[in-house]
Amino acid sequence: MSNTFSLHPQLAADTTLVTDGPLSHVLLMNDARYPWLILVPKRPDLVNFDDLSADDRKTLGDETATVSAVLKRRFDTQKTNVAMLGNMVPQLHCHVVARFTDDPAWPGPIWGVGEAQPYDEETGRDRLATLRADLISAFKHL
Amino acid sequence: MSNTFSLHPQLAADTTLVTDGPLSHVLLMNDARYPWLILVPKRPDLVNFDDLSADDRKTLGDETATVSAVLKRRFDTQKTNVAMLGNMVPQLHCHVVARFTDDPAWPGPIWGVGEAQPYDEETGRDRLATLRADLISAFKHL
Repeated sequence: MSNTFSLHPQLAADTTLVTDGPLSHVLLMNDARYPWLILVPKRPDLVNFDDLSADDRKTLGDETATVSAVLKRRFDTQKTNVAMLGNMVPQLHCHVVARFTDDPAWPGPIWGVGEAQPYDEETGRDRLATLRADLISAFKHL
Repeated sequence: MSNTFSLHPQLAADTTLVTDGPLSHVLLMNDARYPWLILVPKRPDLVNFDDLSADDRKTLGDETATVSAVLKRRFDTQKTNVAMLGNMVPQLHCHVVARFTDDPAWPGPIWGVGEAQPYDEETGRDRLATLRADLISAFKHL
């Protein structure tokens, strides 16, 4: 246990920071198969959802709903998946993933299916810029 | 779209009602491989997490944290998974599952792995009674 927050090295290796909400880093997963964001509350020593304080739970819920709505709008889909698993990376983190009926894992969960496909440089840069603008705008209402 | 809530027939077929929180049914999944509860907010026409009102989001978060803490305590584990997927059953529902390093899907997600193992009558009845007592007690603090 430590008293300061630092991002788990596996999350740092797999993602790029998009922006920050009131509580959490919002990270873009480097996997072009899905529009896939991960929220990580910037609090030390969190493992499970019930480790959050009531106030932080509410804030994470507001952030998660905002991210879900942004993904639906930006990628023109009706479905997102929201999940806090953490069986491999223990630091509490919340996946928010836009899903499509023709994506490689549909209708199953995305975790553990196939191999990540890293973004090419231009596509990754564009996606990051677009989502950053969308989220900065949407977080103003929190 | 309809204006009254009714539980999706697939959830009704796969689960048994444990109790009700302030917002949600709490259902026991009929799969003896995992201690597996499902919360279903009793509101019509919900699909994604961002369809909930801000107040209902907060309540579902409080219920989910309570259920997670009850499962950890009752089954003496350090890990729960929380997920709202809904790719197959569109009605918004939140899985809360106690996980163990020797369970059949560890460390992967539980969905789509193998076949459900229905409880035998006595074990199912005991589990339901135990969780009902735990949750009724824990929900008093919400």
